[in-house]
Amino acid sequence: MQQLEKKKNISMAVIKRLPKYHRYLNELVNNEVDRISSKELSEKIGFTASQIRQDLNCFGDFGQQGYGYNVKDLHYQICNILGITKDYETIIVGAGNIGQAIANYTNFQKMGFKTNAIFDINPKLFGLKIRDIEIYDIDYLEPFLQKNPIDIATISVPPKNAQSVCDILVKNGVKGIWNFAPVDLIAPADVMVENVHLSESLLTLTCLMNKTI
Amino acid sequence: MQQLEKKKNISMAVIKRLPKYHRYLNELVNNEVDRISSKELSEKIGFTASQIRQDLNCFGDFGQQGYGYNVKDLHYQICNILGITKDYETIIVGAGNIGQAIANYTNFQKMGFKTNAIFDINPKLFGLKIRDIEIYDIDYLEPFLQKNPIDIATISVPPKNAQSVCDILVKNGVKGIWNFAPVDLIAPADVMVENVHLSESLLTLTCLMNKTI
Repeated sequence: MQQLEKKKNISMAVIKRLPKYHRYLNELVNNEVDRISSKELSEKIGFTASQIRQDLNCFGDFGQQGYGYNVKDLHYQICNILGITKDYETIIVGAGNIGQAIANYTNFQKMGFKTNAIFDINPKLFGLKIRDIEIYDIDYLEPFLQKNPIDIATISVPPKNAQSVCDILVKNGVKGIWNFAPVDLIAPADVMVENVHLSESLLTLTCLMNKTI
Repeated sequence: MQQLEKKKNISMAVIKRLPKYHRYLNELVNNEVDRISSKELSEKIGFTASQIRQDLNCFGDFGQQGYGYNVKDLHYQICNILGITKDYETIIVGAGNIGQAIANYTNFQKMGFKTNAIFDINPKLFGLKIRDIEIYDIDYLEPFLQKNPIDIATISVPPKNAQSVCDILVKNGVKGIWNFAPVDLIAPADVMVENVHLSESLLTLTCLMNKTI
């Protein structure tokens, strides 16, 4: 119970670091490492040991002085906080380059994300499949959602259509939106939106490369 | 000159916000808006007016009290700081789902990013083209770079190959790496690495959706 209490205080900054902890802990579990000190973890992951102790302390007492962290326990606890000890029903809206790339990425399936359908506006694509996932008419999105409860939807449509897609998703109970369209979606507070703005990422790179800064 | 001096102090936090300013200013330019107050910009972009004034003040005196910002000047200055008033020679290493999606994304070309070649390890892909961009044997990467100076390389290879690709790029003068492989690349300080870790983004979403937090 103490751990659940503690979890409520996790800041957005810690949340943003958790997937990276998860990635390194995955590796340690795969390499059958039993325990690791904050100092060793620090050398791998690149955060300071004190930052790591502070972050991990947010969700329970896993570290023991002179012993370090129990890798398996810590890994499970982080999976739990990341919400990936359960599976997710997902769809993709927009079967363009990004939508297809996401549909083809089998790793997400291994992580527990099941893609049930893809929707697009282009009639030429209707009925085609990406792996075993069928592409449907976008007009079928709302009836589909009414019959099939979906947890997470990927939005990979052109910017001008993104908000109207978002509205349909929200209206039909989707609580997580993974948005690749370069717009800031408006959604109720209980719907989580995570953006991947590729152009903005590329511009961050050129900004950093630009010697006048 | 004062503006150049000022630019040197721009923090990483401001840099991360600049592409978003750029996106909204692009829209304003396209809609032929001449000037905008920090308050109006705040309503559009979602940062506070005081945050906007503070950010934009980092690179010159564009705002005038009671007048607002000159949209065209501010847009140009932000493009300049983002380094996109010039063009970039780029390549893509890894012709999988993500590599192909990036190669197909014509918007980057419109922004001044020219994709010169794609490299992959799979012989079946050699000689094929994505749009007009040819896929070459990864063994040709180093000789290619020696003949063709490249500014930015996208890495979209499996994690286990990403560092060795990075090493070849760095050795041959590539100064910007856009990394989609879920690894933390090691590169010299004068080589900028911008990461797009899709799995981590998806886990951030599930973490936010997870009600126990």
